[in-house]
Amino acid sequence: MDFRDRLDRARAATGAAGLDALLISPGADLRYLTGYNAIESERLTCLVVPAAGEPALVVPKLERPAALASPAGGLDLEVLDWAETEDPYGLVTKQLSRTGRRVAVADEMKAVDVFALRAALPDAEQVLAGAVLRPLRLRKAPDEVAALRAAGAAIDRVHARMGEWLRPGRTEREVGADLARAILAEGHRGEEWVVVASGPNGASPHHDLSDRVIEVGDPVVVDIGGTTADGYCSDSTRTYLAGGRPPAGFADYFTVLLAAQLAAVAAVRPGVTAQEVDAAARDVIATAGYGEAFVHRTGHGIGVQTHEEPYLVAGNEQVLEPGMAFSIEPGIYLPGRHGARIEDIVVVTDDGADRLNLRSRELAVL
Amino acid sequence: MDFRDRLDRARAATGAAGLDALLISPGADLRYLTGYNAIESERLTCLVVPAAGEPALVVPKLERPAALASPAGGLDLEVLDWAETEDPYGLVTKQLSRTGRRVAVADEMKAVDVFALRAALPDAEQVLAGAVLRPLRLRKAPDEVAALRAAGAAIDRVHARMGEWLRPGRTEREVGADLARAILAEGHRGEEWVVVASGPNGASPHHDLSDRVIEVGDPVVVDIGGTTADGYCSDSTRTYLAGGRPPAGFADYFTVLLAAQLAAVAAVRPGVTAQEVDAAARDVIATAGYGEAFVHRTGHGIGVQTHEEPYLVAGNEQVLEPGMAFSIEPGIYLPGRHGARIEDIVVVTDDGADRLNLRSRELAVL
Repeated sequence: MDFRDRLDRARAATGAAGLDALLISPGADLRYLTGYNAIESERLTCLVVPAAGEPALVVPKLERPAALASPAGGLDLEVLDWAETEDPYGLVTKQLSRTGRRVAVADEMKAVDVFALRAALPDAEQVLAGAVLRPLRLRKAPDEVAALRAAGAAIDRVHARMGEWLRPGRTEREVGADLARAILAEGHRGEEWVVVASGPNGASPHHDLSDRVIEVGDPVVVDIGGTTADGYCSDSTRTYLAGGRPPAGFADYFTVLLAAQLAAVAAVRPGVTAQEVDAAARDVIATAGYGEAFVHRTGHGIGVQTHEEPYLVAGNEQVLEPGMAFSIEPGIYLPGRHGARIEDIVVVTDDGADRLNLRSRELAVL
Repeated sequence: MDFRDRLDRARAATGAAGLDALLISPGADLRYLTGYNAIESERLTCLVVPAAGEPALVVPKLERPAALASPAGGLDLEVLDWAETEDPYGLVTKQLSRTGRRVAVADEMKAVDVFALRAALPDAEQVLAGAVLRPLRLRKAPDEVAALRAAGAAIDRVHARMGEWLRPGRTEREVGADLARAILAEGHRGEEWVVVASGPNGASPHHDLSDRVIEVGDPVVVDIGGTTADGYCSDSTRTYLAGGRPPAGFADYFTVLLAAQLAAVAAVRPGVTAQEVDAAARDVIATAGYGEAFVHRTGHGIGVQTHEEPYLVAGNEQVLEPGMAFSIEPGIYLPGRHGARIEDIVVVTDDGADRLNLRSRELAVL
């Protein structure tokens, strides 16, 4: 990963935006710029990227070894540490050659730090760093696409082994614990996302795990992902049938869902807008009479964060360009009964979409 | 857990502070007030606690089932959902009977939401909710102490089994994976914290896991914790010896460390300040000549968050009161060589400290 190049481009964009500096706390932006997956805690860690001058990383003294052991340690950054009784905000402001004008804080920065930095820089206008970093993070470089592809293959390997764990008589939580383990075993480093939504729980798109015992004939939505050692995320959903026969009506709408997912993937190419891809899936589902049952957007961008821009949602006129990566995951949810979702990650190519998840999208009967 | 009582007290404190409302995004404050462990994402979830009127919970439409399935669903809260193309910030401001004056945002709220709520409430002064919620969260009610005690017993059970996993020839990461599993198996629901710092890695207080192979005679700092189904956290550190004999000098400073930890626990009682407990540990270590090697504060509060107030650090004049809960975890770190830390959670009683971790604090030879 070429973090030095990212830092250089971020610095140029900071100047071009008329900003004095970016102030980046732990989270996706810090990982993107330096590879440092810092602990998010009450102790301030802050990357200072000035428009003029060299970036510096402010860290708690006890996390200095961890910062230096991360990729950030190889970037020739000045690493400044603060002891437990020192003022970290003052240390940040000292890195700014002039304390006036405009500074940008990471979109994910906690309010308590936003307020403390405002107090430490009372004359500066405070804006969000997303406006500067979003365009950089939106278009994935070849090394990022390769990392997302490896993550996609890793989560595909977990789906391939689903029959080992998902069966009637087990609880969602038991299956989920096995999946969390398998996500790590198959090539992720952590930050797992595990949804096992069986029977009526499948109608809750963001259900995670419960103590419900899976029954024969349950449709089960399994939405899983993780973060690789490189810091890139996987995210893929398949819907399974826990043996037996699907409930009445299920097969019909599952076919509609599959057609919608295929239509959205087929719609992806440079020049199309994010909302047009959303509409491609939504139109198929609405025409079949299930429009009210598709309660969420069609997808979200993915990279160092599982959810990032671009969002495939009505109203988003973002024009797709090669290198943009996002999920395509329509769902149909019938409250009180069951639901289904199919999700692949795709990358925009010069003339279409490159799918990073390659497991069959059909209903898999276990 | 009596969330209704917490909401009532928060509302009263909001009015007493001259605030119109608290705006609480996902995180520890939301869990404390409602028991809802909401997904932290780009979609706004926000609890509105007005000084006058009833609290309301604003949630993304697709997370409505998850919100209602959580303890928040049993609190008679108005739950308002927003569809993917609606404006959630407008929905929040509509819950305020008057949009003027002063609103408080959760200390953990992301900057992007802080800025959006400021734009949605341009005439309101924006402050931090911590000033209102900190005093409530600082003194644990009996149901909270019971939950912390159960969490402490759960993590003690993991330490009791350390010999099953920690041995020479295995990597820190392999041991860590087993510990993460055991933390869940012994009574936690998730959010694990796993540090296995062997040999020289023990000198990095916030080292987590690496591919280093543990060797005979390594001191190994194991700092583990998790969150129970009730939402309360455990956190306990023991230092182990991976067979053989400790390295030269280690036994001497480990004895100093143990004496320091005992001195700090002995110093805890109502009326003492947080910094006096820190000094009790620090004085023992400094007197023995290791002052420079104890690079962090002596402890942190614990509750629905692993790190919260009160912090045991020089300069913190917070007077201890019955019900306050915090870690006591001095450490001694010799860069390039090794390190040690001992950590228990204690609760302030009417006349002393109640330890929630009861495993032996001596160096455990495996």
